[in-house]
Parts: sequence; C-alpha cells; structure tokens
Amino acid sequence: MNLSHEELMKQNYNRSQPGADSRLMDSQRKVHPKFFVDATWLAEHLDEVVVVEVTRDDAAYQLDQVRTRKHYLEGHIPGAIHLSTDELGEFKGYFPSAEAMAKVFEQKGIRYDTPVVFYSFYARDIMYIASRMALVAYYLGVESVYLLDGGWQAWERGDYPIEVGEVTLPQVAFGRSVPKYPELLVQTPEEVVQLCQAEPEAKLVSVRSWNEYIGSNQGHAWNKGVGEIKGALYGGDDFLTNEQGYVANPKEYQPSWEAWGIEPEDNLILYCGTSWRASTCFFIMKELGYQHLRLYDGSWYRWYLAHEADPERFPIQQGDPR
Amino acid sequence: MNLSHEELMKQNYNRSQPGADSRLMDSQRKVHPKFFVDATWLAEHLDEVVVVEVTRDDAAYQLDQVRTRKHYLEGHIPGAIHLSTDELGEFKGYFPSAEAMAKVFEQKGIRYDTPVVFYSFYARDIMYIASRMALVAYYLGVESVYLLDGGWQAWERGDYPIEVGEVTLPQVAFGRSVPKYPELLVQTPEEVVQLCQAEPEAKLVSVRSWNEYIGSNQGHAWNKGVGEIKGALYGGDDFLTNEQGYVANPKEYQPSWEAWGIEPEDNLILYCGTSWRASTCFFIMKELGYQHLRLYDGSWYRWYLAHEADPERFPIQQGDPR
Repeated sequence: MNLSHEELMKQNYNRSQPGADSRLMDSQRKVHPKFFVDATWLAEHLDEVVVVEVTRDDAAYQLDQVRTRKHYLEGHIPGAIHLSTDELGEFKGYFPSAEAMAKVFEQKGIRYDTPVVFYSFYARDIMYIASRMALVAYYLGVESVYLLDGGWQAWERGDYPIEVGEVTLPQVAFGRSVPKYPELLVQTPEEVVQLCQAEPEAKLVSVRSWNEYIGSNQGHAWNKGVGEIKGALYGGDDFLTNEQGYVANPKEYQPSWEAWGIEPEDNLILYCGTSWRASTCFFIMKELGYQHLRLYDGSWYRWYLAHEADPERFPIQQGDPR
Repeated sequence: MNLSHEELMKQNYNRSQPGADSRLMDSQRKVHPKFFVDATWLAEHLDEVVVVEVTRDDAAYQLDQVRTRKHYLEGHIPGAIHLSTDELGEFKGYFPSAEAMAKVFEQKGIRYDTPVVFYSFYARDIMYIASRMALVAYYLGVESVYLLDGGWQAWERGDYPIEVGEVTLPQVAFGRSVPKYPELLVQTPEEVVQLCQAEPEAKLVSVRSWNEYIGSNQGHAWNKGVGEIKGALYGGDDFLTNEQGYVANPKEYQPSWEAWGIEPEDNLILYCGTSWRASTCFFIMKELGYQHLRLYDGSWYRWYLAHEADPERFPIQQGDPR
C-alpha cells in the first residue's frame, strides 16, 4: 500500500456505509455474544467490559494502514486501555511463554474472568491486529474474549463518543494457571511435523490469498519463497470480511471451505503468513461452531525457512493441488 | 563489518596463534569439564558427545562474520549435527515455548541426558551464536551442556579432521518435563519490572560494550534508542574473550565486575542487545561459580520499545551512572 494513513482512512470511509450488509452476527448473539460484538452492543455495554485498543507500533514493520499508540492517545473508545502488539513479541516472531504473556495482561488489569473486547483499525486487514492479541487472551484462559466487528471504523462510523488520552487500570493477578488451552498453539515447523505424524487426520488450512496459496505471490516482502505447506487446504482470507470491514456472511465462504474438505468437526491447524490473518479466521470458525482449532504461530514464513534447510522434512507445494 | 567472509577468516587467522594464552580452562576441567571444552578435549572425546554446529541463516539479519548451513555442509567437526538459530526463533524475537524448543532437540536426536557440545564460528563474536542455543538446552534440562571454547576456528587451527555433508541422528524423546529451570528465562520487559519489584535485590547486568552502556552507541542497527535499563550495572562484552576468540582469563574482567558490585552470590539478570552476548556471559559466570543467574530474553531492544510507550514503568539511563 502506498497510500498515506489519511488517504486510506478516506478511501475506507468512502467505501463504507453506515451499518453492515451481511453479517455473522444475529440479534440473539448481540445479547449473549460469543466472540464478535458490534459497535451498538459495545456502546450499550461499555461499563461491563474492559475495552482494549490494539495498535501495531513496531518500527521495523510499520504499515500505513494501522493505528499506532499515537492515534490511540489522540482518541479511542471511552475507557479503552492500550496494548501494542510489541508487548507480546516481534511482529513475525514467536509468542513468548504463556507466563510472560499473562504478566502483560496482569499489568493491564486483565484477569481470567475479565470480559474483554479487543479492537484495532481494520482498514481491509480483517481485524488481524486485534485478533492475534485476542487469541492470546483466549489461549491463556480469559473466559470472555470478544472482537469488535469492523474495528475502530465501526465505532467512528456510529458517531459514538471518543475519549482522548491514556486509560490505565490497576495491576491484578491473572487468577488462574496458564495457558488454559496449551494444545491450541503450535509454534514451530517441527511441532507441525510431529503433530501431523501423531494426528494424521489433522488438516492444515492456509488463511492466505489465492495467489499466495498457488504460489504466484509471496505475500509479505520478508517471505523468501512462494507456495504452501505440502497438503495445506485453501482457507482464503479476503472474503472473510466484506467491503465495510465487518465479518462477512458465512454463506460467502463456508461453501468454499466445504469444497476443500474443511468441515466444522475437523481437526484443523490454521496458519497464514505470520499467523495474524489466521487469528481472525480462528474466531470466525469458533463463532460458527468449528470444534477443533489450532493456530500455527510460525506460519508460512517459518515453514519456508525450515524447508530451505530440510526440504524432505518440511515439504512444500506450488500451484493448485486439486 | 564490511569484510567478506574470506577476508574475515584470514584476518582472524593472522591474528591468532595456535593454543590459547590466558584461559578459563584448567587441566582438571579438561577431564571433567563444566561448561567449556577445548578442541584438544573434544578431539579426544568425539565419540562420547553429540556435537552441534550452530549457524545463523536468517535472511533478514545475515552477517558476513558467521558460518551458515552452507559452510556446515562444506565441512564441520566430524559427527556434528546442524542447528540453525532460525529453528528456535527470530534473531531478535522471543524464544517460543519450552515444549516447542524441546521438540526441535528431539528431532535432532538430543535427550536430556545426551552430552552436547555446541560450537559456532567465533569471529570476535564471543561465541554468542552457539551460546544462546546452549542456554536453551540448559534451560530445558540437558544435563551436560558444553561450549567449544574458541569455536570453529579453534578446531581448524588444531588441524583436526573435518567431515563434509550433513549428519543426522534418529529422533528421540526428550525424556523429561521441560523446562527444568523455568525461573532462568525472563522474556518480556514487563516480567523484568515485576521480578525486580518482587526481588529488590536483583541486579540487572548489561553485557554490552562501554559505548552502548553509556549510550553513545546504539549497538544493533535496529535499536531505536540509546542507553540502558535504569539501574543496570556494566558487565561488558568485548573483554570476555581474547584476541584468539577464547574465553579470556577471569582476572581480566572479574575485577571490573566486582567494582560494579557484581558478585558471585548475587541475584543477577543478564541481558545485552537481543540476549545473545549475554548467553556467553551466562556460561562464563556459571563456570566461575556465580550462583543465581537469569537471562532477560527481550534485552535492550525490547526494553526501549516498552520505554517509548511507557517511560515511567520502563525507565532508562544514559551516561555513566556512577
């Protein structure tokens, strides 16, 4: 993207209409949400949840389509505390230990029983910045983890109040052992290999674009090679959200998943380039009732590095495997 | 460094003499080494240990003063298996979970009771490439972890046999729960803050150069700011090894440590720019009988990022604090 932050904001606003067209949400879930809440629900429940604005500030990989801490300080959802993705690790690196991540949440004032709504600036990013941090909260054991559907722009579009300056909460104890779901997170290529040996029915799902999937596009500039993990199924990414940046109607992508043999009861390992987009897909699938989901942290970026060293143990595919 | 690999090799050879001048090792320890072995010892005990050549291959941060997998394949210590630093994470990122790292060792054929000698190409690098991987092995619970003092060049200098091509060992089970020493590894800035609150006697030791320590030099190009963690003591780095690349005589640096109040019985948290140099210092201190050592994984690089967001919680110092 070569557009400035302002141009992108404008472009996205022009593209967007108030309200969503086809949504994952239904009226029942607005009362008892599972993982996605909309701005209307959030405005009505602000005093019942902790809101976390997640920004991406890492100097090395700063994009022009994100909000940074500076934008948070200039205006955020009332009461929202701030979390930088830096606080849980390098953008394309591995997560640190569960204990280390729990300490970050403790310092933010988040316990396992604190209901938390994460949001970021969506800008066609399928909410991945908030999603990966929300996934950590879920992995550690936060019992009520929500994502604001449509992100910051959904809030601004609704003309809700905005608060300036930093909000902090008192430090707390997390209140339970971590992680609650150790099996959810698969970090290294070697873990993927051993997992697929131990569970031959496991399916790898690439949450990348079609051009990345067939290997005609490397995706992120830092990826050294093109293709996919051998055997990976096509999950796709861009159709998961609509033009307004909201989660799209599952009718738009579930048929594609089914055609690739990706079913709700399957043993699925989600990944993408560096496991950010896959985090949004994780919550969409959870919302839709998919049972057995894992995230592969290292994703394609780390797989290809491993492949270069040992192509036999870490095989790849290029082209449409069907 | 703008020198080519070949020029660096030559320069280091010209600078080096066969044998070491002042060494940490003594004749007794050659028979029952603690953490450092020399090339003579290794040549005599090759069939009793697993040798691991550690190379640094990450495309994003490749230096000209390291050996890569290509160099390993062209010639290595006989029987040595290969480990890339990539396999345990991004160069300036956090380590993944202990379980993920143990799986990498399992695939290499290393159990908790396998005696392992790590080496890398030293080239004035105080053996940091091998050291950080050796530290992981120790943290996980490998009972006999050694570093080849002087690294690859000590082996070449001794005119010992060299083997071409890859060596692999059968996959094994690690054989114990991991990590053995969970308290050893401190990953995030937030963990450092909480640790120093809980243990006010803990001392932060910067294993960086004097110019980095006083803030006149940022060190790595990716560091955004100069200085040190507030309160950090000067551990230093370059005097830990001598001109030949061997661990220097402790008489050369222990007086400096003592002058800074860094004592063997102290509660010490070691760090540097991204916790590589500090890993060598960890083993030197272990060898010398320092009791209570931790490694702060995020190091100055992550501290400064945290400082930018919250200077009060993550304070820094610049200049000589004495």
